[in-house]
Amino acid sequence: MTETEIRRGRPGYDQRGILEVSVAAFNEHGYDATSIGMLAERLGLSKSAIYHHVSSKDELLELALGEALDSLEGVLTEDGATTGDAADRLAHVLRGAVRVLVDKLPYVTLLLRVRGNTEVERAALARRRAFDRAVASLVVEARDAGSLRADLDPGIVSRLLFGMINSIAEWYRPGGQEDADQLAADVLTVALDGLRVK
Amino acid sequence: MTETEIRRGRPGYDQRGILEVSVAAFNEHGYDATSIGMLAERLGLSKSAIYHHVSSKDELLELALGEALDSLEGVLTEDGATTGDAADRLAHVLRGAVRVLVDKLPYVTLLLRVRGNTEVERAALARRRAFDRAVASLVVEARDAGSLRADLDPGIVSRLLFGMINSIAEWYRPGGQEDADQLAADVLTVALDGLRVK
Repeated sequence: MTETEIRRGRPGYDQRGILEVSVAAFNEHGYDATSIGMLAERLGLSKSAIYHHVSSKDELLELALGEALDSLEGVLTEDGATTGDAADRLAHVLRGAVRVLVDKLPYVTLLLRVRGNTEVERAALARRRAFDRAVASLVVEARDAGSLRADLDPGIVSRLLFGMINSIAEWYRPGGQEDADQLAADVLTVALDGLRVK
Repeated sequence: MTETEIRRGRPGYDQRGILEVSVAAFNEHGYDATSIGMLAERLGLSKSAIYHHVSSKDELLELALGEALDSLEGVLTEDGATTGDAADRLAHVLRGAVRVLVDKLPYVTLLLRVRGNTEVERAALARRRAFDRAVASLVVEARDAGSLRADLDPGIVSRLLFGMINSIAEWYRPGGQEDADQLAADVLTVALDGLRVK
């Protein structure tokens, strides 16, 4: 079922449909600059109709960031991330992170712009940092297992890897020349092959 | 001479000192949200004292973006970028881009946040795109010379390389554990070694 099909038709949005339109607005105008009034206009709903589905703009942000974070954290519990040697598990997680970015592009885009201005944003950043630490641990494990070069700092390597992956949100557009799988393969070639011990 | 020494002492700022403080404010609060009044307060100057040095906030932005772009474009004209084989020239330019990012961190940070909302921003984006195209051409040249893998799209590769490099602005702080040269070496190892034909 696509996200469009989940909506129950205009103008009767369910929470999911309201979230989708809200995230697009947050990404376009910035979260702070987007009011519930602007969302109501964009949805063709009254403000009270929106409040029937969500208690506040803050809750919309929380739901949206949760969507991105649940998906990223889900990658860490997949078989490919928990079994096999560390370098392969790292490759699985990087591929998964690219897939989540492409599949949930507006939600991950929003997550990447969060600066920690509110409690909701700080909680999201804490979850994001925990995810990054899990990846950094995999880099350390792969290095200690002799699969990755030992002369680079694992923290720096993790940051550079996610710098590359996250930057995809700046230019990737669905239906473009590269699908998620090809893009993930490109990232692994550019980013990970150089790290492997030859 | 450091940027601090160029200033002629407080509260008598020259244009350079005003620019430095303004760029810090733009990065902290966002360009749109920063008024000349806020800059005046931060500088301990009157608004008219600022207007003695620059005609407008827009001119401050233009000067700041020019600082970053002049440095980046300067890398392309260095000997290492114009002589030798294409893969080495590409490596030189990537190293140079990391060095500029570290040396001119606030200015490059501002450049990376520009969205094209004004004429000044659009002109800066056009110069930035020309720089990116020059790098993409080097990737094509290096690939055609047989130095880089032929199975990846040079446009995607360039974007991933700059995604990695630009992301450094998100976390690098001067005086941290890595200096510019070490960081550039790390980027080349992570980003370029995987692309080289073995």
